[in-house]
Parts: sequence; C-alpha cells; structure tokens
Amino acid sequence: MGSKLPLLFVFVMLFGLTSANPSKMRKPYTPCKNLVLYFHDILYNGMNAENATSAIVAAPQGANLTKLAPQFNFGNIVVFDDPITLDNNLHSTPIGRAQGFYIYDTKNTYTSWLSFTFALNTTSHQGTITFAGADPILKKTRDISVTGGTGDFFMHRGIATIMTDAFEGEVYFRLRVEIKFFECW
Amino acid sequence: MGSKLPLLFVFVMLFGLTSANPSKMRKPYTPCKNLVLYFHDILYNGMNAENATSAIVAAPQGANLTKLAPQFNFGNIVVFDDPITLDNNLHSTPIGRAQGFYIYDTKNTYTSWLSFTFALNTTSHQGTITFAGADPILKKTRDISVTGGTGDFFMHRGIATIMTDAFEGEVYFRLRVEIKFFECW
Amino acid sequence: MGSKLPLLFVFVMLFGLTSANPSKMRKPYTPCKNLVLYFHDILYNGMNAENATSAIVAAPQGANLTKLAPQFNFGNIVVFDDPITLDNNLHSTPIGRAQGFYIYDTKNTYTSWLSFTFALNTTSHQGTITFAGADPILKKTRDISVTGGTGDFFMHRGIATIMTDAFEGEVYFRLRVEIKFFECW
Repeated sequence: MGSKLPLLFVFVMLFGLTSANPSKMRKPYTPCKNLVLYFHDILYNGMNAENATSAIVAAPQGANLTKLAPQFNFGNIVVFDDPITLDNNLHSTPIGRAQGFYIYDTKNTYTSWLSFTFALNTTSHQGTITFAGADPILKKTRDISVTGGTGDFFMHRGIATIMTDAFEGEVYFRLRVEIKFFECW
Repeated sequence: MGSKLPLLFVFVMLFGLTSANPSKMRKPYTPCKNLVLYFHDILYNGMNAENATSAIVAAPQGANLTKLAPQFNFGNIVVFDDPITLDNNLHSTPIGRAQGFYIYDTKNTYTSWLSFTFALNTTSHQGTITFAGADPILKKTRDISVTGGTGDFFMHRGIATIMTDAFEGEVYFRLRVEIKFFECW
Repeated sequence: MGSKLPLLFVFVMLFGLTSANPSKMRKPYTPCKNLVLYFHDILYNGMNAENATSAIVAAPQGANLTKLAPQFNFGNIVVFDDPITLDNNLHSTPIGRAQGFYIYDTKNTYTSWLSFTFALNTTSHQGTITFAGADPILKKTRDISVTGGTGDFFMHRGIATIMTDAFEGEVYFRLRVEIKFFECW
C-alpha cells in the first residue's frame, strides 16, 4: 500500500505536464450501447414538394420561406421528418424517422441548434431517442446530448457525435450520427 | 456454483426462443413517483382570442396563421400556455400551466413533436417538469421523455405516457398525461 | 431492533405535523460543480442589425417581426446567439456563446420558455451545457433544468437558477445564470 502512492503521484505529475487541456484526462468511459445511423434531409425550395422532407417555417424580417435567409441563414427554423437508414444510401429501407427542428443561429458563420427525436420502428429497435444541442456545422464532428429515451432506449442518456456525411447545395444533406449511451437501464 | 450455470443457460435458451421481441424482456421497473394530469389546448383560429390558449406562430410557404396548414399541418409550430387539471374537466381549478410548443412534422399523416414544461403551483405540488419527444397523435398511447425537473421534481427523470382524451375539430383537444418518474431525488 | 421502530414512528409523526410543505424536507444536496455566468441579448428591432444578437422569427397572426407582439408578446419565438461573459459587463471578452431560442408564451403576463445551449470554448472550460424550462421572467429567480452536457460537462445534469440582471426597454437584457450540477461524471 505504502509503495503504490508515490508511483501514482509520479504518473499524475507526468500526465499533467504532457496535457495542455485538462479535459483530456477524463476517465475513459465505455458506452453501454452504441449505434451508428444516418439521416437524410431534403429542404423544400418551392419546387420539390414531392421529395422534400423538411421546410423552412420561420425566418427573420425580410426573408422568405423558400430560400434560406441572408447572413448565414440566421433566424431560420426548419421543421423536418427525415428518413433514418443504417447506411449512407438515401434509398435504403428506412428504419425510422428523425423528427423535430433545427435553427440557424449565428449571423457571421454557419452554426445550427438541433432538437429532435429518432422514432425507430424495426424488429431490432423499437423506441425513441431524443437529442438536443448546438451543432457548429462547419466542424468535422460535433457532440450533442441524448436527453432521453423510451421503449428499447427507456431512460437512456448519452452523447451523439454528428458528422455531415454529404451535402448538395442548400437542398440535400446527410448526417452520420454515432449514438453512445453511457446510461442504460 | 457449478450446478447453477447449466440451469441458467437452459433458462436463457428457453426465454430467447419464446420471445420474438427482445425488448419485451426488459426488467419491470417500478416508478418512484407517479402523477396523472390533464391539459387543455384551445387553438386560436382568428375568432376566439378570449378563450384561446395557443396560437400558430409559424407555417411553411403558402400557409397562414389562423388555419392549420395543408398536408397534415406539416410545418406548423404552435405555442401554448394550457391549464393543467387533476381531472378531465376544462373548468376544474387549474393546478398549473403547460407551457411550450408543438410542431406538426409529417406531410403524409398526423404526427407532432412536443417540447414543454408543466409549471405546478399548489400546496401539494410546487415545481416544474420538462418533457420532450415525438408524439404520433393517431396512436392510442405515446411515450415521451421527462428530461428534467425542479422544485418538488428536483433532478427527476422518467417517461410520460400521453393519450388524446378528447378533441373537437381543430380547435380543442385534451391530453391525459401519466408521468412515471424512475429517477427521484 | 424492536426498540428502534417506535422511536422512528414518533419522529415521523412529529416531523409530519410541524411541516406544512413536504417539499421543504428535501435532502440538502450539494452541487458537484458550480458556475456563475452572464449572457447578453440584444434584440433586432429593424435598425440595429450590426449589434443585434437575436431576432424575432415567428409571431401570431397580425404581429410583425421587428416589434414584440401585443398581449405580452404571446407567441413570439426569438432565436439568439448571445455572448457569455464571466462578469456582468457586455464588453468583457466572451468565453462562449448561448445559442438557442425563447418563446413568449402567456397572454396575460410576461413569461417565457427557453431551450438553449452554452457552447464554452476557453482553456478552463471546453464543452456544452444544454438547458430547457419555463422562465416566469417577472420572478426574481427562476429554476430551469440542465438536461445534458458534452466535453468538460460530459453527461452532467443539474439546475440553473436564472436572474434578470439588467434590461433596457425591449432591446437589451442580461441574464445571470448560476449552474449547479448535481450529477457529474
């Protein structure tokens, strides 16, 4: 017992000196459950009513609802009902729907804020996962919070890491979401 | 010790074979607190300003704000401040207010997405309960997440089961909410 | 064992008789982490595009987007991207951004409902904190829920106590937020 303490002390000192960011020293938690899913957003632009899965429903003064607002879309609210797939193919059989909204909320760069639910409905996954958080879309990966779940995800909490997997102009984008649950029931 | 293992193995095998849906095997958690409440939503339609408790504030291109949008109301955002009662009578003394918003978010059926808070203010219940989740309103019961609480519901989490208890056209609806807390403090 | 039971019974009886409000008996939890921060909201009024940090993006029928709605602003949705500072000076170096939205949601008094994220980005704090809850703005202090966190606030939960620290007409307000985490990881 007495001989372990000094060793631990040396280790902590070394670790502390080599790490600029104290958050890097966080305990390496292992997820109790892990999912990788894709969802596909096709924004209504006034001409694609058939295929669109989302629509601009609010905008600041002077903007309209078939075109994202000037100043980095600041103030636009988009409501969506997007198909969720297991791979990155828009035409794969959906395993559920991503439902909720996002906001563009910065006037000098592109950032969004998201609040939505994955409603999954397959033999392997039945239930909902609800998310919320800031989404600085120009960064390669962004972490948002999993704030609740129902069904197979009863009372779960965790972190979702979002990546923009593809986009085409302002009309189509595809997000890859890695959901890591750290509280399972 | 050695004789218990094979028995457990047989039990797991049997259980696995008789259950089509693994989620059915979930441990039967018992709520640490339980509440049944009703809330009442009267949507502003341009003529009922006196009685209305909610209003359409956003809609997609081409829709207006005194009538729910075409295509299953897709894209409407409704802000509400609804009375909460202990029974299903709109005229009972309210015990608090349900405040927040809902979105209609599917273009080929009726589904909504909710994010709101119960602000309770009686001698028996003081505090707030915050909810979020998908609400496929045509289903008899829907589960959403309780993501947080304050006051008497400090740090609580749980599941709320919502039922449409009554509705009159597009103007009035009443929801029955059974709140089951599984994390109490 | 037999002699402890009656004593406990007497204690419970006494306690029950002297307390009118059972919630007052709650265990005095101590936060595992505590932060006091300020954020500053400058609402776009049609003439301050340069300085504004927020904009009205939705309103009920008959209202416009450069002026808060009549009837206590009922139905307005405001999207914001506000600087966060360590003290109450708008011109202090921001340590992050408060991003999300608020709703005015009562037609006979001023109350709002908030859902937003603190995105912090300094050497001492890296990560996000997500909040949601009812904000009866005329009360001196209001409690909302911390529903999730990422980075340094990985999986954290807690309560945020909000105070209106200052306001100037309808254009500027400053909120003091004391964040008390009761679940840290």
